[in-house]
Amino acid sequence: MGKSTTLIMFCSLLLVSVSLNGCMGEGRTRESFHGNECQIDRLTALEPSNRIEAEGGLTEVWDSQDQQFQCSGVAVIRRTIEPNGLLLPSFISAPELVYIEQGHGISGLMMPGCPETFESMSQQPFGEQERGMRGSRFQQQDQHQKIRQLHQGDILALPAGVAHWAYNNGQEPLVAVILIDSSSHHNQLDKDYPRRFYLAGRPEQEQSRHQYRGGESQKSSGNLFSGFSPRTLADSFGVSEEIAQKLQSEQDERGNIVKVQEGLHVIKPPSRSYEEERRPYRRYAAAPNGVEETVCSARLTSNIDDPSKADVYSPEAGRLTTLNSFHLPILTHLRLSAAKGVLYRNAIMAPHYNLNAHSIIYGVRGSGRIQIVNSQGNSVFDDELRQGQVVVVPQNFAVIKQASDEGFEWVSFKTSENAMFQSLAGRTSAIRAMPVEVISNVYQISNEQAYRLKFSRSETTLFRSGSQKTRRSREIDA
Amino acid sequence: MGKSTTLIMFCSLLLVSVSLNGCMGEGRTRESFHGNECQIDRLTALEPSNRIEAEGGLTEVWDSQDQQFQCSGVAVIRRTIEPNGLLLPSFISAPELVYIEQGHGISGLMMPGCPETFESMSQQPFGEQERGMRGSRFQQQDQHQKIRQLHQGDILALPAGVAHWAYNNGQEPLVAVILIDSSSHHNQLDKDYPRRFYLAGRPEQEQSRHQYRGGESQKSSGNLFSGFSPRTLADSFGVSEEIAQKLQSEQDERGNIVKVQEGLHVIKPPSRSYEEERRPYRRYAAAPNGVEETVCSARLTSNIDDPSKADVYSPEAGRLTTLNSFHLPILTHLRLSAAKGVLYRNAIMAPHYNLNAHSIIYGVRGSGRIQIVNSQGNSVFDDELRQGQVVVVPQNFAVIKQASDEGFEWVSFKTSENAMFQSLAGRTSAIRAMPVEVISNVYQISNEQAYRLKFSRSETTLFRSGSQKTRRSREIDA
Amino acid sequence: MGKSTTLIMFCSLLLVSVSLNGCMGEGRTRESFHGNECQIDRLTALEPSNRIEAEGGLTEVWDSQDQQFQCSGVAVIRRTIEPNGLLLPSFISAPELVYIEQGHGISGLMMPGCPETFESMSQQPFGEQERGMRGSRFQQQDQHQKIRQLHQGDILALPAGVAHWAYNNGQEPLVAVILIDSSSHHNQLDKDYPRRFYLAGRPEQEQSRHQYRGGESQKSSGNLFSGFSPRTLADSFGVSEEIAQKLQSEQDERGNIVKVQEGLHVIKPPSRSYEEERRPYRRYAAAPNGVEETVCSARLTSNIDDPSKADVYSPEAGRLTTLNSFHLPILTHLRLSAAKGVLYRNAIMAPHYNLNAHSIIYGVRGSGRIQIVNSQGNSVFDDELRQGQVVVVPQNFAVIKQASDEGFEWVSFKTSENAMFQSLAGRTSAIRAMPVEVISNVYQISNEQAYRLKFSRSETTLFRSGSQKTRRSREIDA
Repeated sequence: MGKSTTLIMFCSLLLVSVSLNGCMGEGRTRESFHGNECQIDRLTALEPSNRIEAEGGLTEVWDSQDQQFQCSGVAVIRRTIEPNGLLLPSFISAPELVYIEQGHGISGLMMPGCPETFESMSQQPFGEQERGMRGSRFQQQDQHQKIRQLHQGDILALPAGVAHWAYNNGQEPLVAVILIDSSSHHNQLDKDYPRRFYLAGRPEQEQSRHQYRGGESQKSSGNLFSGFSPRTLADSFGVSEEIAQKLQSEQDERGNIVKVQEGLHVIKPPSRSYEEERRPYRRYAAAPNGVEETVCSARLTSNIDDPSKADVYSPEAGRLTTLNSFHLPILTHLRLSAAKGVLYRNAIMAPHYNLNAHSIIYGVRGSGRIQIVNSQGNSVFDDELRQGQVVVVPQNFAVIKQASDEGFEWVSFKTSENAMFQSLAGRTSAIRAMPVEVISNVYQISNEQAYRLKFSRSETTLFRSGSQKTRRSREIDA
Repeated sequence: MGKSTTLIMFCSLLLVSVSLNGCMGEGRTRESFHGNECQIDRLTALEPSNRIEAEGGLTEVWDSQDQQFQCSGVAVIRRTIEPNGLLLPSFISAPELVYIEQGHGISGLMMPGCPETFESMSQQPFGEQERGMRGSRFQQQDQHQKIRQLHQGDILALPAGVAHWAYNNGQEPLVAVILIDSSSHHNQLDKDYPRRFYLAGRPEQEQSRHQYRGGESQKSSGNLFSGFSPRTLADSFGVSEEIAQKLQSEQDERGNIVKVQEGLHVIKPPSRSYEEERRPYRRYAAAPNGVEETVCSARLTSNIDDPSKADVYSPEAGRLTTLNSFHLPILTHLRLSAAKGVLYRNAIMAPHYNLNAHSIIYGVRGSGRIQIVNSQGNSVFDDELRQGQVVVVPQNFAVIKQASDEGFEWVSFKTSENAMFQSLAGRTSAIRAMPVEVISNVYQISNEQAYRLKFSRSETTLFRSGSQKTRRSREIDA
Repeated sequence: MGKSTTLIMFCSLLLVSVSLNGCMGEGRTRESFHGNECQIDRLTALEPSNRIEAEGGLTEVWDSQDQQFQCSGVAVIRRTIEPNGLLLPSFISAPELVYIEQGHGISGLMMPGCPETFESMSQQPFGEQERGMRGSRFQQQDQHQKIRQLHQGDILALPAGVAHWAYNNGQEPLVAVILIDSSSHHNQLDKDYPRRFYLAGRPEQEQSRHQYRGGESQKSSGNLFSGFSPRTLADSFGVSEEIAQKLQSEQDERGNIVKVQEGLHVIKPPSRSYEEERRPYRRYAAAPNGVEETVCSARLTSNIDDPSKADVYSPEAGRLTTLNSFHLPILTHLRLSAAKGVLYRNAIMAPHYNLNAHSIIYGVRGSGRIQIVNSQGNSVFDDELRQGQVVVVPQNFAVIKQASDEGFEWVSFKTSENAMFQSLAGRTSAIRAMPVEVISNVYQISNEQAYRLKFSRSETTLFRSGSQKTRRSREIDA
C-alpha cells in the first residue's frame, strides 16, 4: 500500500473509530473453545476435503475442523456452477464474502422489507396449457427484487441470514470461492460450524463431517418448508396442498445446484450494474448519505481484479488491491475485508504481519513461496501455495510471499472490516519507524548496518526480485 | 409488519448501522461452550421448573440448563408480587427485559450519579417515639431517585448492574415475565448463569441448580452487606453497629419479596409517567437530543399491549407490535428487543425466520399451534403453546404460528436490538422477491403455479384462516 | 467522585452511547471457557509467580492461570528496566495499559502508515570506519516515528498489535505495571493467554506455564525474523545475508531488556510532550476534531498521579482520579480504563460495586484492608493489600477499602472504557436513591434509622475514619 494511502486509511480509521466511539472492529469474537487452536506449529496448504455433486454444478468444502480454520473461526467452500446452473435459494447464519474466480452470473438477494424494484411489463411466460388464464393481468407481468450481476474478480458481500440464489448465464463455469465467517457475532447459532438453510430442494449440508456427530438427524430431510404441515403451508400461501407439497421438494434429487433446461429468462438491466457505473469507485467517501445506501440498494459488490484500482503498484513487482469498509460500506456491518495480490515473476511481498485480523489466502493463479513465522520465531509454513489452495496466516504471525517463475495471484479474506498490516521491510516498515541507534542496539550491529537496514529498500510493500540488489550491497559490505 | 413500515425500519436500520460504523447488533456473542447447543432435534413447551416462595410473592424459574436456553444464552423467570409486596432491591450482571403480564406497580432504579429528583416537602413519617427529633429538618422530608410506574403490557428495560426495587400498589397480583440476557457482553461474569446481587434480605439465588455445583458455597449468607465487617459498615455509614447489622439482614427469613404491612407511602407523580404522556409514541425519532435522554431521565418502559401501537394490523387476523431500539433507545445499549402478537381465532402468522436474533416466545393468553423447522428441514416443534409456557425459536429457524379457537397472544423477547424477520409467504415475503422463473425452476412447478405461490396471499405477515381461500384455489387447481 | 462530576460523566456516557447507537463497551467478551471462573469463594493478594531476568532488567509475571485472572480475562506483568536498559521492540495481540510506577523513560511506537516525524539534521552517528561513506546524505541524518516520554504516574495505552520499544533514560529503575487484556475482541488468537511477538532478540515468552503445554515448541527460537530464510530476508531488506542473519539474533542471550553501554542518543523534544502541555487536561471534550487525533499523533498517555487532576478530593480522606475514554479517547478503542486512589491514614473508600467492569487493583504504596463480597453475601477477601500485590474485584462484587496507619495508594485497571461504580454509602449512594420507607421496610428498621442510614454520611466516596462519628451516633442511638 502506498504510504500516504496507508496513512490516510489508518488515520481515517482511527478518526472514525474515535469519533464514533470505538465501533471499529468491535464485537468480533473469535472463540477458541477447546483451548489453543492458534498455538500453531505447522500449517499446510489445504485443498478441499469434500465434494458435493449436484445436477448443475459442484460444491467443494475445506475441512472446517482443520486447525487453521478453527484458529481463524471461518469456513471456506468453492462452488462451480455450470452454464445454465441455478444455485437454490439459501442463507446461512453468518456473513459471507464471495470471490468470483471465473465466469459470469446473476444473483438475487431476498432482503426483508425491500421493494420489488424490477418489473417486467411485457413478458409472456406461459405456454399453451395456460390459455385459459390469458388476459389475467397478474400473470402477464412479474415483479421481483433487484438482480445483481457477477463477474470475474467481483467480491460479493452477503449479510448473515439474507437468502439468495445465483445463476450462471455465461458460457463457461462460474467459479466462486466463499468465505463464511462462522465466528461472527451475527452468528448466534453454534460457532464451530456454519449451517445453511435452503428455501428449496433437499440438499445435503456442506459441513459433512458434522453429520456424523449426532445431535440433529444425519440425513437432510429437505428445506425450510419440509418440516411444516402441508395443510398449514397451503393455508399460508393460499394455494392447494399439491402446490404446497412442491415447496417441500420431497422428490427432489437434483442437489443444491439445478439445471435450467432452456435457460433462465429473468428481468435484468442490460449491462453492468448502474450504480457501479454511475458511482465511480470512491475511495474515501466512507460516510453514506442516507439516500443511496439503504440496504435495499446498497452496493454489495466490488471488483478487485481491475488493475486500475490497485492501491500499491510497481511495474516491476506487481500490485495489491484492498477492499475494506471505506470502499464498500456494507463490510463495516460484516466485519470482513479482502485483498487481491499480483506478484510478477520472482517478486516479493515485504515481510509483514496483520495487526487486527487473520488472513485467509486462496491461490488464484500461478504459485508462490510463502513463509509464515509464529510468536516464538518458528517457521510454521515454508511452502508453495498453488492455484486452488488455501493457507491461513493467523493474526500477528509474520509472512513473506515470493512469486515463482510463473508469477503469483491470490485473494486474501480478512477477519476485520479494516484489516491493517505492518510491513517489516521497505519504506513504510517498522524498521523505518525506529531510530538508527535503537536498531543498532537491538540487533547488535553497527550504526552503518542499521542505516542500511532502514534505507536500502525504498520500495513500498512490493519488491522486485532482490538478487541484483543483494549482490550490490554484498559488495559494499565486503 | 406493513410493507412500507418494514421497509422504512429495515432501511433506517442499515442507514444507522452504516453511518454509525456498523454498531448494529455488534458485540453480541452467544457462546456455545460445550459444542452444539443449537443443534436442536426437538423443542418442548417449557414451564417453570423451580418455585421460590417469599412472604410477599413468588418467583418461578425456568431451567436455564435446558437446551433452548443454552442455545439462546438467556434465562427466564416469572415473578408474582402480591398486593403490598415489595421486591427487595437487587441487580444482576446482565441486561433484563421485564414484561408486565398483569397488575400495577411502581419501581425505583438506583442509577449511579443520578440526582434525587423526587422530593417530599410535607411528609411526616415519624411515629411518636421520634418526638425528640421533631423539628430536625432532614427528618421531615425525603428525597430519592425517580419512581417509575408499571402497568400491564409494559416492557421495562433494565441495564446490567443497575439496582432496582418494585412494589405492588394495586389490588391484584403484579405478574412480570423477565428475560435475562446472560450471554450479553455486559455480563463479564460467567455466561452460563446469571447471578443476582441483593442489597437487602437473605434471598436464595434464583438459579437453584447451580447451588449444588460447588464453587461458591451452597447457601446464601445474605446480601452484599453481609460479607462486610459490621464495624467497617458502621464506619462507612456513620451509624451504630446495631444499625449496620440490620443491613446484613441476618435474621431475615422473608425471602426476596416482603410484605409491607400498612402499605408503602412513597412520593410519586399522580398519574402515568409524564414523559410517556407528553411524548406520544414516536416511531422513527431514533436520534436523541441530549437533553431528554440522559440515563437519569431515560425512558425505560414502553407499553406493547396497546392496540393503537400495532405495526401490523388486520381486523380479521390480529396484530403485531414490535418494540426495538427505534422506539426505546435504551434497547440499543441492551441489545434486546421485543414483540407482542395477537392472533384472532384460527388466524396464522406467516411462516418466517428471524435473521439476526433468537426469539423467546412466552404465551400470554389463549393458545396457538407453533411449528418450528431447523436447517435440515426437520420439524423440531409442532405443538400447542399455552399461557405461561415458553419456547425458543433459534436464529434462522423457520416458524409458523396459528391461533387455536380461543385465539392466541404472546410476547417474544429477541436477542438483538433490532431483530428482523423474513416472511416466507405473503406480500413482503422471500417468495415475492424471486422471479417467477426462478421459483418454477427451484420447485419444479409451472410458471402459473409459481405465480400463484407469489401472488395468492396479498396480506402481510398476519393471515386470516385460509381454509376458505384454500378451497377456492383448490377449485382453480382442479 | 463528586456527585455532579459523576452525574455528568455517566449522563454523557449514556448520551454518547445512545446517540452513537450503543457502542459503549460493546463487543467486550469475557469468556469463561471451562465453566465457572467467576464463582469465587476466596481471593488472595497475589504476587508475581515468575521472574524473567534479562541483561538490562527484570520481568515479573503474575500467574495468568489463577482464578482471579481467569475470571477477569486479563494478565498482569511488571517490568523493571535498569538505567540505560532498552526493552526490545515487541507487540502483543491484545491491548495493554501500562502504569509507570517509578522512573523516567522514552518509548517509540511503530504505527503502520504513520510518517517519520522526528528528524535529526546534524547528528553524526558514524565512527571512523565509515569514513568512506561521509557526504552521503542519507547516512548523516535519521528519521523515525515520534518518541514518547514516560514519567512516574503515567498511564500508557497500547493498541493490540502495535510494536513498541522503551528505554530508561533516567537515573533510577523504570518500573512499569502492565495490564494485558487478553480476552479483548482485538485478540483473535487464543484468549486464555496473551502471546508476545518480538522484532528482535530471542526472549522467552512471559507466560511461562504455557511453554510446557505442548502445541508450539517449548523453547523460543527467536523473534519474528528468525523463522524466515536468511536469503529471503536479505532480498527483502536489500542487504547482505550477514546483516539479515543479525535480524534473527541467533546468538543473542541478553533477554528482552538489553543494556545500552554508552546510553542511547535518540532525537526527542526537550521536555514533556508538547500536546500534553498545550492541551490542558480537558475533561469532557470527548468529541475529537479530526486534526489533533489521528492515530499518528494521538495522545496515548495521561498522568493519573497528579493531585490536581483528582475527581474526588477530601483533605481529610484522600483523592481518587479516574482515567477513561472521556479523558483519553484511545481508551474507547481499547475498552479499558484506570483509576488512581490515595487514602490517607485510616480513611475509607465507601462500599461500592463496579457496574460494568472488573477492577484489577495493584498496591502502589502503603497498605490497606480490602473487603470483597460476592453475590451470595459471602466475604471472599478480607485482607491487607500491600505494595506490589494484586487483587481482582470481579464485576458487581462489593468492595470496601480502608487505609492502614501508613495510608494506601493503588491503581485500578478496569475492563471497560468507562467503568462505572455505584457507591453503597454516602452522598451519591444507592441508599440515598431509595425512599426512606423502602429502606425501613427492606431492612426492617424504623423510619428514623432509615433516615440515619441515608443522611449520616454527607461525604462522597472517600470518608475520613469514622470512629469519631460512629461514637457520636451511638450516643444518639442509645
